[in-house]
Amino acid sequence: MTEHALIKKHFAPLAAGFPGSLNLTDDAAILEIPEGYDLVVTKDAISEGVHFLKGTDAGLVAQKLLRTNLSDLAAMGAAPLCYFLSLSLPELSEDYISHFARGLAEDQKTFGIYLAGGDTTATHGTPTFSVTAHGLVKKGRALRRNGAKAGDGIYVTGTLGDAALGLILAKDGKSGALVNRYHLPQPRLKESEQLIGLATSCIDISDGLLADMQHVCDASSVGAEISLEALPVSKEAREMIAAQPELLALIYSGGDDYELLFTLPAGTVPPFAATKIGTITSGRQVTLMGGGKEIRVAKKGYAH
Amino acid sequence: MTEHALIKKHFAPLAAGFPGSLNLTDDAAILEIPEGYDLVVTKDAISEGVHFLKGTDAGLVAQKLLRTNLSDLAAMGAAPLCYFLSLSLPELSEDYISHFARGLAEDQKTFGIYLAGGDTTATHGTPTFSVTAHGLVKKGRALRRNGAKAGDGIYVTGTLGDAALGLILAKDGKSGALVNRYHLPQPRLKESEQLIGLATSCIDISDGLLADMQHVCDASSVGAEISLEALPVSKEAREMIAAQPELLALIYSGGDDYELLFTLPAGTVPPFAATKIGTITSGRQVTLMGGGKEIRVAKKGYAH
Repeated sequence: MTEHALIKKHFAPLAAGFPGSLNLTDDAAILEIPEGYDLVVTKDAISEGVHFLKGTDAGLVAQKLLRTNLSDLAAMGAAPLCYFLSLSLPELSEDYISHFARGLAEDQKTFGIYLAGGDTTATHGTPTFSVTAHGLVKKGRALRRNGAKAGDGIYVTGTLGDAALGLILAKDGKSGALVNRYHLPQPRLKESEQLIGLATSCIDISDGLLADMQHVCDASSVGAEISLEALPVSKEAREMIAAQPELLALIYSGGDDYELLFTLPAGTVPPFAATKIGTITSGRQVTLMGGGKEIRVAKKGYAH
Repeated sequence: MTEHALIKKHFAPLAAGFPGSLNLTDDAAILEIPEGYDLVVTKDAISEGVHFLKGTDAGLVAQKLLRTNLSDLAAMGAAPLCYFLSLSLPELSEDYISHFARGLAEDQKTFGIYLAGGDTTATHGTPTFSVTAHGLVKKGRALRRNGAKAGDGIYVTGTLGDAALGLILAKDGKSGALVNRYHLPQPRLKESEQLIGLATSCIDISDGLLADMQHVCDASSVGAEISLEALPVSKEAREMIAAQPELLALIYSGGDDYELLFTLPAGTVPPFAATKIGTITSGRQVTLMGGGKEIRVAKKGYAH
């Protein structure tokens, strides 16, 4: 099957609801940006053996790729609009591409986003995919990393460390709730929308809690004190750590959780379920406190 | 060097002139689209051994990648705004990345575009790069493929076949004007701007003249009659074909020229130097005439 035939059969249907895609027939897409809005744009690539395990279902790979980009939109408070996709595959296997497209179709429905363009190429290397996601946010209202102030409360959505623990299990060929968290992150778009005008800073946790907290502190010229005891941990993660206590560090250094980490002025209550895990300080460092003393952290984050 | 350090050193300077890039410090970029404009977006990926030869200077690879995307903007009549970049490299070699970034810096000056975001990842495979380019066009004024009418004149910029002939020479380790055309396409942004409101259709020639003409005809529900004798051929290409006559077909089927192919209503004169190569017909087929009769074409275009 030629690239044109593959696009027409498997990708054009994903663009059908979005007029700006021009049904993928032109050289580019045309986006009409409504007056009073800014466009938020993010681009992330993933590669087999680095970001996903060889043999992972193509639909799951597609969903994770789309969701990590959507999580970046959530970090900025943007509502999904459309995305562009590049697929580089060793062979343009129709079976692989049809599964990939099916995963995208499912997530397009879940998150209200459309394919608007991209390309498909045969490569001599490993499968590599990239998405550029576009979202809308009211002019000047995007959430940023640079507004945290000393005294602000630090909050996270959901639970931490699940994806990193899930990866360990996935490598062993196991399944379950933690493995699902690794494969299928939940971009926090609904929560992020409610943080606009409220949060002083926001980021999604992709590199690990302490590393991403450091990014916020660097951008805001502040420090942070985080309480180990306060960190939200799922039942499944608790059980796994109880059996292997050396895995505890993944709670604050494990990547791929894609929860939101945000700060609110003292006295402000989060508009949805979230966990307070610490306070912004006037220093520059991120410190982790546990059992009343500072915990020395060997490795703050996860580099893919 | 970590990804963060590489980005800060080599890529942040490329984003310095574009406020929406947020200096590459946040999860995404924020694009303010001026009132009365549409955003044109295109995404193309290239992979070693498929789109460029192993051993090609990283700066040249970067320039070709950026320019093929700029050519897609030109095809739609859009003026460059910013681009997003994904690099997947077997190792994050600082030498390679610094050459790559230098090539981008040079072209950013030439074409007035800025880096606004992206990512860098280590892959287990061959180098694969992708760019998503954004351009601006006045609302509703983008050039399209679908407006050609029977009787319109068919025009091309520049000369045809140079890049395909250059690729043959490049594979033999040769250099010269044709090889340069293969490595460094010239996106026709200035010409494209002047076609707005004038051309009934426009496309850039990336797959080959006849294949791209067919795309226009399919989108416009018309046919085309093209004259072999009218096709513009460079001195260098003429010499190479004189020595190897079997290469003649590359003039109309060779890819990678990135010239504009456009149609104008009968009687309209192109606002810049361009060559009239044929006429739109009421049929559906693209026919190539030479020596007073139809030339049967074995292969219309070039699939990467």
